[in-house]
Amino acid sequence: MAGSTYGNILRITTWGESHGKALGVVVDGCPSGVELCEEDIQIFLDRRKPGQSKFTTQRKESDTVQLLSGVFEGKTTGTPISMMVLNTTQRSSDYSEIASYYRPGHADYTFDEKYGFRDYRGGGRSSGRETIGRVAAGAIAVKILKQLGITCTTYSKEIGGIAIDYNSFNMEEAALNPFNMPDKQAAQKVELFAKEQMAKGDSVGGVIECVISGVMPGIGEPVFDKLDANLAKAVMSIGAVKGFEMGDGFMAAKATGFTNNDAFVMEGKNIIKKTNHSGGVLGGMSDGADIVFRAAIKPTPSISAIQDTVNKQGENIQVSIKGRHDPMIVPRAVVVVEAMAALTLVDLILENMTSTIDKIVGFYNREN
Amino acid sequence: MAGSTYGNILRITTWGESHGKALGVVVDGCPSGVELCEEDIQIFLDRRKPGQSKFTTQRKESDTVQLLSGVFEGKTTGTPISMMVLNTTQRSSDYSEIASYYRPGHADYTFDEKYGFRDYRGGGRSSGRETIGRVAAGAIAVKILKQLGITCTTYSKEIGGIAIDYNSFNMEEAALNPFNMPDKQAAQKVELFAKEQMAKGDSVGGVIECVISGVMPGIGEPVFDKLDANLAKAVMSIGAVKGFEMGDGFMAAKATGFTNNDAFVMEGKNIIKKTNHSGGVLGGMSDGADIVFRAAIKPTPSISAIQDTVNKQGENIQVSIKGRHDPMIVPRAVVVVEAMAALTLVDLILENMTSTIDKIVGFYNREN
Amino acid sequence: MAGSTYGNILRITTWGESHGKALGVVVDGCPSGVELCEEDIQIFLDRRKPGQSKFTTQRKESDTVQLLSGVFEGKTTGTPISMMVLNTTQRSSDYSEIASYYRPGHADYTFDEKYGFRDYRGGGRSSGRETIGRVAAGAIAVKILKQLGITCTTYSKEIGGIAIDYNSFNMEEAALNPFNMPDKQAAQKVELFAKEQMAKGDSVGGVIECVISGVMPGIGEPVFDKLDANLAKAVMSIGAVKGFEMGDGFMAAKATGFTNNDAFVMEGKNIIKKTNHSGGVLGGMSDGADIVFRAAIKPTPSISAIQDTVNKQGENIQVSIKGRHDPMIVPRAVVVVEAMAALTLVDLILENMTSTIDKIVGFYNREN
Amino acid sequence: MAGSTYGNILRITTWGESHGKALGVVVDGCPSGVELCEEDIQIFLDRRKPGQSKFTTQRKESDTVQLLSGVFEGKTTGTPISMMVLNTTQRSSDYSEIASYYRPGHADYTFDEKYGFRDYRGGGRSSGRETIGRVAAGAIAVKILKQLGITCTTYSKEIGGIAIDYNSFNMEEAALNPFNMPDKQAAQKVELFAKEQMAKGDSVGGVIECVISGVMPGIGEPVFDKLDANLAKAVMSIGAVKGFEMGDGFMAAKATGFTNNDAFVMEGKNIIKKTNHSGGVLGGMSDGADIVFRAAIKPTPSISAIQDTVNKQGENIQVSIKGRHDPMIVPRAVVVVEAMAALTLVDLILENMTSTIDKIVGFYNREN
Repeated sequence: MAGSTYGNILRITTWGESHGKALGVVVDGCPSGVELCEEDIQIFLDRRKPGQSKFTTQRKESDTVQLLSGVFEGKTTGTPISMMVLNTTQRSSDYSEIASYYRPGHADYTFDEKYGFRDYRGGGRSSGRETIGRVAAGAIAVKILKQLGITCTTYSKEIGGIAIDYNSFNMEEAALNPFNMPDKQAAQKVELFAKEQMAKGDSVGGVIECVISGVMPGIGEPVFDKLDANLAKAVMSIGAVKGFEMGDGFMAAKATGFTNNDAFVMEGKNIIKKTNHSGGVLGGMSDGADIVFRAAIKPTPSISAIQDTVNKQGENIQVSIKGRHDPMIVPRAVVVVEAMAALTLVDLILENMTSTIDKIVGFYNREN
Repeated sequence: MAGSTYGNILRITTWGESHGKALGVVVDGCPSGVELCEEDIQIFLDRRKPGQSKFTTQRKESDTVQLLSGVFEGKTTGTPISMMVLNTTQRSSDYSEIASYYRPGHADYTFDEKYGFRDYRGGGRSSGRETIGRVAAGAIAVKILKQLGITCTTYSKEIGGIAIDYNSFNMEEAALNPFNMPDKQAAQKVELFAKEQMAKGDSVGGVIECVISGVMPGIGEPVFDKLDANLAKAVMSIGAVKGFEMGDGFMAAKATGFTNNDAFVMEGKNIIKKTNHSGGVLGGMSDGADIVFRAAIKPTPSISAIQDTVNKQGENIQVSIKGRHDPMIVPRAVVVVEAMAALTLVDLILENMTSTIDKIVGFYNREN
Repeated sequence: MAGSTYGNILRITTWGESHGKALGVVVDGCPSGVELCEEDIQIFLDRRKPGQSKFTTQRKESDTVQLLSGVFEGKTTGTPISMMVLNTTQRSSDYSEIASYYRPGHADYTFDEKYGFRDYRGGGRSSGRETIGRVAAGAIAVKILKQLGITCTTYSKEIGGIAIDYNSFNMEEAALNPFNMPDKQAAQKVELFAKEQMAKGDSVGGVIECVISGVMPGIGEPVFDKLDANLAKAVMSIGAVKGFEMGDGFMAAKATGFTNNDAFVMEGKNIIKKTNHSGGVLGGMSDGADIVFRAAIKPTPSISAIQDTVNKQGENIQVSIKGRHDPMIVPRAVVVVEAMAALTLVDLILENMTSTIDKIVGFYNREN
Repeated sequence: MAGSTYGNILRITTWGESHGKALGVVVDGCPSGVELCEEDIQIFLDRRKPGQSKFTTQRKESDTVQLLSGVFEGKTTGTPISMMVLNTTQRSSDYSEIASYYRPGHADYTFDEKYGFRDYRGGGRSSGRETIGRVAAGAIAVKILKQLGITCTTYSKEIGGIAIDYNSFNMEEAALNPFNMPDKQAAQKVELFAKEQMAKGDSVGGVIECVISGVMPGIGEPVFDKLDANLAKAVMSIGAVKGFEMGDGFMAAKATGFTNNDAFVMEGKNIIKKTNHSGGVLGGMSDGADIVFRAAIKPTPSISAIQDTVNKQGENIQVSIKGRHDPMIVPRAVVVVEAMAALTLVDLILENMTSTIDKIVGFYNREN
């Protein structure tokens, strides 16, 4: 029953409901000596903050983080880092109605079935606000990765069926359009399509892609804690994610061995791969190439268009979901995907430090 | 570094290399009182046994299971169940050559990078034989699910790009063709395509689909141990799996909220869904509908066609992988996917027993 | 590196330093439907609150708890319960001096060795204030136990070598003296002895005993998560605890089998034991008798008497620890021991619900 | 329900019943590159082997280990190490009678209550033979510790109330008497006392002490996975252990702060402690001094003297336990205590490798 903890060595525990007093996360197992301040976290939270364009919810939430423990004189101390965001702008009245029925595509029904009742205000624990804790923790993981020379690049690859063209790929562009899309033309098409759907009270989904560069080979723990397996869990645990692909993913299922295998080749004294169909993972361990994966995000289930559903009295009814909802969550989910990937990767990098007796003896001798 | 354990309450630990003395699994946390004999396990192991058609490896391995502990007078005792399969027909000489170079698409390189060296015989721990332990454990999980009225149906949905037609879906047919494909015509097309590829020394991939029926609503532990997140990890941890989809999966990313939401409706006194785009999961918990997911399987990397690679001396070379390899692993992987799904589901069903204080008090009063 | 989480199904994560902004705990896996308000928690925190007599620290800390999540309309929802206590009365200046040297009997030196530096204010994470999170979480566990008819009775058995006389045992008395001692005469002797030691700037230790009644047989998970093993870890993880005994404990080592075995006997239709040398545990599982254990608490290391030590410059120095320290921590630690025991017991009771297939099938059929 | 796994990074899973086909252990997370052969394990198993003197059971069990996986060309590969001992000399008929009643001091009753029935042959899973897996795994942990310059010295400190005199302490003597006692005179007294008890069909208990030297400061993970807390769990999880003490243990409860604190002092450029009342642990982390702890072992519950108990029909009866039982288990338990301590220590040493960002960056740069 304890599902709010993720990670083994670097371990996070998130808490909080959409309309409770606050949301937060405890990050345990963070090494000491990492320079950290609230601003480091806030930058990440701002990437998921609502109200930044007309294509996301119009709620204005400042989502200001408070760093409550685990940092002393500007550095992490090795003890648990507690971070909290107060809920300030909830309008519970928006949600009083939904207490009485089950919204299609939402977790209202399953929460009631599992727990007997639920905090219905704004989706409670199943709200997208739950990801605040993930993102705050992920900001720390990304900082650690940077110190190792590892970078994460995450963006919207496709929205409403409109995909980026890699020939026009421009990561700077992603910051300039409201869709986090690294292709100006694709973003313009998405804008038109999204406006159409919004006019109908409908919503759209999409695909997020993440590329991680600079990872040494051998990260991942066969056979169950493989890098790709853990990334899959991390990403699929984000609400609204319905699919996960590593490298060529489902296209690999249509390929043949000859076309799908990545040939090794010497580059100076280093072994590299000529291609990267595998997405940087072989046998569940990083292979030195870029780690590449994608997440399929379903369209926001909260729509104002009229839908059939049932109420708690067991009657068939029709509803139109009011409130300030995101017509698409893909742009705001980009940083959540990055956060979960970074947390997963740091955890497995730490686990890998103990993989050979030589590393352990070397470490112990240096320390002792 | 301890990645060979999976599950929380029902927990398995697998061990063994392709060409070591034996392979096996310890299943801990299995409830007492489950009727269990070696034959129950053998039936499952036989589903993954090689040498059953010309489309799988021609190695003849009996893979006979021994039940070593945890069962007394025909029933599980609640103590760990240890199961072992002796390796009998290994021909290590087949593999002596591959000690010297890195096979494309295999884990040879990453194992060496992580651990400094590797048991190169037959892929060692990264061999498909590692799944013997998963399947043996999965057989027990499927037995437990049956006692709860839950059934798993798993099959090849697509091989080499050739998909089944749901209008011709016939699960009995899956047992009659060598591809585990529930559509006779599709199987015939696959046969032709596979022969072509085999003639070229090439291999093919495919997609496995699993449908689980009879699961009560509320199974899955938000927010990280969601049913879909845990299934994703379980399935992506199988070698060769490159993608995972729940319900509509990547198609959901192209849909709109109106078409993707599943409307609730009353069926007598029960709440059901009119459609099942979600694949039986809402908010990470089972919603009472069939649980539906798919796994993308890459083509077998061991091919006899000539490939570029490097050897351990750091030279570019060309190789042709000899040995008795599967031209496709999809048919044999079907039972592995089913095993991992069943283990995941049982674990989360057990976790769900503690979700409300009423359940706990009721249980305690009955027992005391 | 992630050592701040305890428990498997009911799982707590504590955070916070003595002189940081706040301390707290996240309780994950608490079943839904438990009636809970801040007052329920506050009662427990008040039992460990300082400043209640001249025999504990004279610091005045209100330690007021805030319940931040996981409770809706007066009941737990099954989602994580976050609780926080703001640090309000820290006088960091008291501690500025101790930054420069290592206090004997404290964790200053080991924290520096492990993490490279430390939050030295008031002991930082190794402060007794760390137990606030344990006690807040324990309050919930005790509430759950009460609903199952299980009670915990915890008290000071011995302070400064002066032990209670079981013939004069009176639990009501424990609330009347500042030592939590259920024997008036023993408490009076302790008072005299403690005053003597305090006059010398010295401190005293003692033994805490806990008796848990009403536990059904069979709780505990062989072979590593035995009830006594988990209790030992829970209690030994409290700062200042140096020993743990179950039932007769170290006296059992001097006994013979004939005198140490507890004979079974029928009481009506029930099996009971004539004696309870085992302390209510056989083979690591509860045996239906009272669960009885003891914890040895060392004397407070912070004393004003002059001690030898070294400073960070590597010089031998002499110090006298100033500040508002407890001359004994036994009375305040009683509730901490009880909290850890209750958390351990609830966790194992929840785990036990899945011990037989009959229980699981019965549960599933009732739910479905 | 899954209690047969111990450890986080180095993780063992034991399995097997006294009279089943075999017993064993899977060691997962062992680093690659450790030289290991069956003889390394056998030496440890021989230390717990029965039949070595008249003061232990007269059963003759060779307990020959088979190494089934995880080792290649004489070195560990980093993959799970499976070890097995076949049960060869069981005489189940010895135990047919005990199926019908509950032996005092044994786990018969609690197993039946928990699981509904039990494998009654020789105690099944609650037999001392369960420790075979612990000892086999511990042999590997001790090998790893040796490579780090860490040694474990474990011996009988007290048997039947007769304690060693530290002035006569001689570890070589421990190998010469049947009691593992490092004091010749004490061993002689124990021999006389034990013969007396055996003549009466009775049994004796004792205390085992373990001293671990060479551990760098900082090992242990505050606040729950403290070194002393984890040692306590590890040791208390061994059947028959009823108490655990660190350093001065229960004597510390009678001391004052001034006498109990260990003063720091410079020894050349190193910080050491003048005394070691703490047993080498401060704040749950190793402090550089010897780690010292003790375990209280109860007298063997299987005695031939007549005892009261009840049978499964609910009748009060009298029994005399037949069979080849140990009149004391202390001498054979010495290696079990050492094994559990070594496993605990290695696990925490591995966890400590990730305690600072400098260590992590240093490691990553060396590897990359």
